[in-house]
Amino acid sequence: MLGEILENVRERTPLIQNITNYVTANDCANITLACGASPTMSDGEEEAEEMGRLCDGLNINMGTLHPRSVKAMLLAGKSAAGFGRPIVLDPVGAGASTYRRETAEELLREIPFTAIRGNISEIKTISGGRNSSKGVDADAADAVTEENLEKTIALARDFSGRTGAVIAISGAVDIVTDTKNTYIIRNGHPVMAKITGCGCMLSSLTAAYLAANPDRKLEAVAAAVITMGLCGEKAYEKMTEENSGNAGCRNHLIDEVYKLTGRELERGAKYELR
Amino acid sequence: MLGEILENVRERTPLIQNITNYVTANDCANITLACGASPTMSDGEEEAEEMGRLCDGLNINMGTLHPRSVKAMLLAGKSAAGFGRPIVLDPVGAGASTYRRETAEELLREIPFTAIRGNISEIKTISGGRNSSKGVDADAADAVTEENLEKTIALARDFSGRTGAVIAISGAVDIVTDTKNTYIIRNGHPVMAKITGCGCMLSSLTAAYLAANPDRKLEAVAAAVITMGLCGEKAYEKMTEENSGNAGCRNHLIDEVYKLTGRELERGAKYELR
Amino acid sequence: MLGEILENVRERTPLIQNITNYVTANDCANITLACGASPTMSDGEEEAEEMGRLCDGLNINMGTLHPRSVKAMLLAGKSAAGFGRPIVLDPVGAGASTYRRETAEELLREIPFTAIRGNISEIKTISGGRNSSKGVDADAADAVTEENLEKTIALARDFSGRTGAVIAISGAVDIVTDTKNTYIIRNGHPVMAKITGCGCMLSSLTAAYLAANPDRKLEAVAAAVITMGLCGEKAYEKMTEENSGNAGCRNHLIDEVYKLTGRELERGAKYELR
Repeated sequence: MLGEILENVRERTPLIQNITNYVTANDCANITLACGASPTMSDGEEEAEEMGRLCDGLNINMGTLHPRSVKAMLLAGKSAAGFGRPIVLDPVGAGASTYRRETAEELLREIPFTAIRGNISEIKTISGGRNSSKGVDADAADAVTEENLEKTIALARDFSGRTGAVIAISGAVDIVTDTKNTYIIRNGHPVMAKITGCGCMLSSLTAAYLAANPDRKLEAVAAAVITMGLCGEKAYEKMTEENSGNAGCRNHLIDEVYKLTGRELERGAKYELR
Repeated sequence: MLGEILENVRERTPLIQNITNYVTANDCANITLACGASPTMSDGEEEAEEMGRLCDGLNINMGTLHPRSVKAMLLAGKSAAGFGRPIVLDPVGAGASTYRRETAEELLREIPFTAIRGNISEIKTISGGRNSSKGVDADAADAVTEENLEKTIALARDFSGRTGAVIAISGAVDIVTDTKNTYIIRNGHPVMAKITGCGCMLSSLTAAYLAANPDRKLEAVAAAVITMGLCGEKAYEKMTEENSGNAGCRNHLIDEVYKLTGRELERGAKYELR
Repeated sequence: MLGEILENVRERTPLIQNITNYVTANDCANITLACGASPTMSDGEEEAEEMGRLCDGLNINMGTLHPRSVKAMLLAGKSAAGFGRPIVLDPVGAGASTYRRETAEELLREIPFTAIRGNISEIKTISGGRNSSKGVDADAADAVTEENLEKTIALARDFSGRTGAVIAISGAVDIVTDTKNTYIIRNGHPVMAKITGCGCMLSSLTAAYLAANPDRKLEAVAAAVITMGLCGEKAYEKMTEENSGNAGCRNHLIDEVYKLTGRELERGAKYELR
């Protein structure tokens, strides 16, 4: 099933509109191409409605927010929603400033997101109004561990119930849930925290997987999360083999997504479904 | 002759001002350095006139359009034209939105471009006002094939006659033409469609080649197109050797431009001149 | 001592706020992670004050200036200064336009910088109001050589006296000085001039090293400059071994920072302290 989800992306080559930050935009475009989809990356409000209509899926990433890009997000989001396109929210650094928290709240009020993906600090902030993270990384105190796993799943399910979105929480253990079923995913490698944009790239992948698999939302998000984790593991192996660092590993990560087959995704997946 | 054109870039190190998008700006800067030129990348209207005057060549890329960057394009374009600098237009995704099509039309009215480079959908849109492409890639229905080659050359020649610019159409077969002569180029590899920014990088190269060879416009544009295609072939070989993907291939592509000699360019070129 | 400075970055993982350009932002984020710090990259004026307060160090880079980002620079700079955070200025292309020179002057008037890092043309421009550089690279006529070394040191010391900042001048020979002591550094490789963003990346490193070593400002800046030069040498070796070009070398450079140990930094450093 996971493999089929990836194969559908390659076969259907959905057009994914990314309104995203200028830090990781290039990697987001290349990973979108790597998985088989086709990226557009504009953030102009002048064309946001048209882009929301034309695309097969929309990814909204709050990495480098401006009033102008927020307008584009709202216009594209409403337009894409009107045409039934899947829409992903990546609330980057939602707890790092008042502006980010308030923007996330506005986006959540105005746009019916299909999936919301962030680290645990970001999801805690936007699900409960709490504001304590430092920068764009998750607070160490927030890390998802085996100990607080049940509590985190409960939080994510509750947030899914209130938003209607599939919730994906990234970390050492990844959680992907709707109100009924939960994937607990143990793919990935700590080196990924040393590569800028792993979260952003995953959100682009998520939009692509959803756009090619509109009837299997939870599975599509889970397959994207597993793809990223599995390719992170493979990239780490290649990095140690050739004695490279985080820049090399970033390239390998995108390369591994490019080469990944449906069968390899099935075989490499480490998850539990509840 | 092709080799000499590249060697002139290396010898004269022209300063190329790029008003471009935030997705591929880094790759455009690095490929400009790789071919021997020196890039500046600002898009502020506050300095656009000065930059247009100071540079040896200007590249205008519509990848992530804003009203602010459009103002910079117009100011820099008029300034560069007043000083006789070559100016390249890359009408990225011109057919993807009304805003893009109208901006392309405004730029074409106001700036005497030396060269216009795009895929066939982009060139069709801006040469005839048609608006049918999806996103930033060429429509499959538009692909330049051996069958429609003559018709496409006629379209490009006509557009060259109306604009005074050398027209370059990128695709499986590349066409570079003015009103009199046409290069039909068969370098390149399909993997290049999986690397974001290949078109953008080629437009930066084109501005560099033109700036260092102002008296051989058609040949300079053809040499840039051949350089990109040939280095794409070499990058693909390296990619398959080391079993990498599109991110690795992007790095190899820039690396191959960095290492390319005039002699290799001559030897590897696959074209027909009519 | 140099080694300890790097180890402090890895141990203290300072949060570095970068208000920087869209060309090299990704490389700046990845090199910040590579040295052990944690980057944030926002340039929104709406959150600039909060970001200036939250961060452990601030890096202001003038690469792609806009009135909006200048406002963010001023707000974040004053806020960071009020909380005693170290602040780095990278006056990219300060001599390339009136707007850049005037912005540099305004930033220098309003913000008490801890360190100012640029090439010799940039430092000459902002220290004396001269405006003669072409683009963002140093004028050949300006190059720091063994012949004009003493004069350049005198200029940098004088500028340090007037600003209270550590001054770092990058070139074939690097100079790092306050009013009393001067590091003359001979690490580095000419290929670094062919990689876009080496200066930008160094400024991000400098902010990270300063944030983790607030009581040893001169040494922290010198250690950052030596790190960059030494990793450039190592990257060049790897580039020639695998026959790659400037894109490959850029990746190796970040990778080498990622792998560098305090001991290697000590052993590889080539400098004279006066």
